[in-house]
Amino acid sequence: MTTAVSELITKAKAAKAAARSLRMLPTETKNAALEGIAAALERGQRAILDANALDMDAGRAADLGESVLDRLLLTEERLIGMAADVRAVAALPDPVGEEFDQRTLENGIRLAHRRVPLGVIGCVYENRPNVTIDISALCLKSGNAVVLRGGKEAIHSNTALTALVRDALGSAGVTPEAVQFITDTDRAVVEQMVRLKDYLDLFIPRGGEQFIRWVRENATVPSVTGGIGVVHTYVDETADAEDAAAIVFNAKVQRPSVCNALDTLLIHPAAAARMLPDIASRLTAAGVELRCDQRALALLGPVDDRPIKAAEEGDFGQEFLALVLSIRVVDSLDEAIEHIETYGSGHTEAIVTGDDAAAARFVDEVDAAVVLVNASTRFNDGGQLGLGAEVAISTGKLHARGPMGLRELTSYKWVALGTGQVRP
Amino acid sequence: MTTAVSELITKAKAAKAAARSLRMLPTETKNAALEGIAAALERGQRAILDANALDMDAGRAADLGESVLDRLLLTEERLIGMAADVRAVAALPDPVGEEFDQRTLENGIRLAHRRVPLGVIGCVYENRPNVTIDISALCLKSGNAVVLRGGKEAIHSNTALTALVRDALGSAGVTPEAVQFITDTDRAVVEQMVRLKDYLDLFIPRGGEQFIRWVRENATVPSVTGGIGVVHTYVDETADAEDAAAIVFNAKVQRPSVCNALDTLLIHPAAAARMLPDIASRLTAAGVELRCDQRALALLGPVDDRPIKAAEEGDFGQEFLALVLSIRVVDSLDEAIEHIETYGSGHTEAIVTGDDAAAARFVDEVDAAVVLVNASTRFNDGGQLGLGAEVAISTGKLHARGPMGLRELTSYKWVALGTGQVRP
Repeated sequence: MTTAVSELITKAKAAKAAARSLRMLPTETKNAALEGIAAALERGQRAILDANALDMDAGRAADLGESVLDRLLLTEERLIGMAADVRAVAALPDPVGEEFDQRTLENGIRLAHRRVPLGVIGCVYENRPNVTIDISALCLKSGNAVVLRGGKEAIHSNTALTALVRDALGSAGVTPEAVQFITDTDRAVVEQMVRLKDYLDLFIPRGGEQFIRWVRENATVPSVTGGIGVVHTYVDETADAEDAAAIVFNAKVQRPSVCNALDTLLIHPAAAARMLPDIASRLTAAGVELRCDQRALALLGPVDDRPIKAAEEGDFGQEFLALVLSIRVVDSLDEAIEHIETYGSGHTEAIVTGDDAAAARFVDEVDAAVVLVNASTRFNDGGQLGLGAEVAISTGKLHARGPMGLRELTSYKWVALGTGQVRP
Repeated sequence: MTTAVSELITKAKAAKAAARSLRMLPTETKNAALEGIAAALERGQRAILDANALDMDAGRAADLGESVLDRLLLTEERLIGMAADVRAVAALPDPVGEEFDQRTLENGIRLAHRRVPLGVIGCVYENRPNVTIDISALCLKSGNAVVLRGGKEAIHSNTALTALVRDALGSAGVTPEAVQFITDTDRAVVEQMVRLKDYLDLFIPRGGEQFIRWVRENATVPSVTGGIGVVHTYVDETADAEDAAAIVFNAKVQRPSVCNALDTLLIHPAAAARMLPDIASRLTAAGVELRCDQRALALLGPVDDRPIKAAEEGDFGQEFLALVLSIRVVDSLDEAIEHIETYGSGHTEAIVTGDDAAAARFVDEVDAAVVLVNASTRFNDGGQLGLGAEVAISTGKLHARGPMGLRELTSYKWVALGTGQVRP
């Protein structure tokens, strides 16, 4: 057994032991610990920023790209933002202990479902240090212990942040063992972690498509996977031109690097004739490269020096994560739904339409975590959809679908209160 | 690729294609198909009973035990019972399409969760032919396609029953491809099936502990596992003696071969002195073998020819599935909870008490799918707990915990209705 694996198992065991005391932690205690984390983030800035500077230096030396370095960077302003996020989690209702589906059986047994923590959450995530704080806060509020394994580029930042979290837990009377951070950056740790089903109740992988697929193939810990968003918006012939242009622009341009950003515009021929040139102009002006099928291309006139070209087959069903949009003219709602059924990843799908019947059919027939009518696909986000925060966006159908907030980090138990009943 | 695997993949593909049309099937159509299955079970008895006779002959020739043969046997009466079960599923509310957690966001987007079928369910199950009908009915009502793989001893019965189901589906205008039955009895089929994640949305293994453990180690299809019930009842010092005796007797004796039957009685010394001799007498009179710790043994006096003996360590934490009960005297509620934490399987746990505070602590602190107060553990059953029917009892915490009925065979999608909103 390597050192890496030993660290993992030692910490996973400690998390499992901690989970038992977390199950019944009063809401006030959990909120006090969260407030302690927020205050420490504001107060302890120097130690965190010093640790982050080590990661940034190493990152620059390793020639990490600008976007990676930007995700890695912590500033005073960002730490204050992280503290605000933690306080937002504290302000959310505590899901644990909530009873639902109460009923009394004919034999007099009073029955209810009671929401309980899952136990221990394992999370492997990208090199954004704020995720360390986000996930710790969400797990704590939902009464779960957590075993964290962040990207190796953020190792100093994450170590410092986890120490801060564990101190704050201890000060609030919560066992610091509730939050475990794996310092070993060996890939073997992850391979072991996804099979640690005796200690982990849920595994959440955050990362790229290749990693998610690997987890699906290899995890025996129950996992909720997502993140891969091949996202479509269908603009039908009744769509309002201004709404369509604004929604498509927002969905593609507002933050192109994330999973709910638009990948493919499907558009009815009548709508395309009426509004595609305007939509395309706005997009190309913002630096978006358009990859168009022949019918769309024909409507856009001479390409000149605009970033517009003919789509290849691989441009449909692809998650670009960049300022690239594929465009296809489809003759009907049926054809749009069929395209989405074929190429979609079940993440986020939208229709822009003035026709209620078309909207209803789209919502009924498209099978995705979030289906939107006349709104930007960028709204598929825990914060935007009212969850306050999210640990991930699930594209699986089991347990949780779409953004996962506090409630999605819980299970339930059946509670049956009798007065001596036996089964006939 | 073997023939076995080809059959599986062909049928799984057909199920996946069928699932798309099942998603939006009107409740009336599903109920008509269920009524058709029920009527056919009553009408087509001869063909079914003839097929069952082949299985019974083969089973006797193979010297299957009496209990196996009894599970395998179909009679006119049992078919009529199965028809009634199907009609009971038809009478249950349709979970599909139900909207919940509706709210309107500040930006005006109207949000709801809408319940949708999972898609395709795979199920490998024991040699009880009625399971073929139960699972088919539950999957149909919840809008799911299903790929069934029953025990090889029931192959003729299951083939005949599946043909009946598919005929009834076709007559009601539902694609018969919704129900797929794998005829190949090679073990390789199951090995392939648990990794068929491109076609199956949920895998439900029914069977013994060894099989369940194998699935947990090997499945990449999301699986809900359960069935292993190491079940405790704690009788505290305030328990009513008659209630305690009746509850323990019912939990152990009423049907000892199933997962919610009692395995270990934990009893407070004061309660043991007051009532253990009576509890033991009733149990031994019903043929229950008692395996007692030293303190319980001392209270039961001379054993004489009664089936009472000293417990060995392995008698705690064991699922007996037979008329055997281990008994341990514990000094406190804390010790009872600690025993259950150590030895329980998270399936079904009960307390018999006259003390509301003790009941509340037990319910709060015991982590199991179903926790009962003053009632028999035999109530952990979908039918008994008001679900109408069940596909399995989950001991996992993800997706569903405890008995799984129709709702537990569904997922949800987020539906967001906007009026042109974009993300700021």
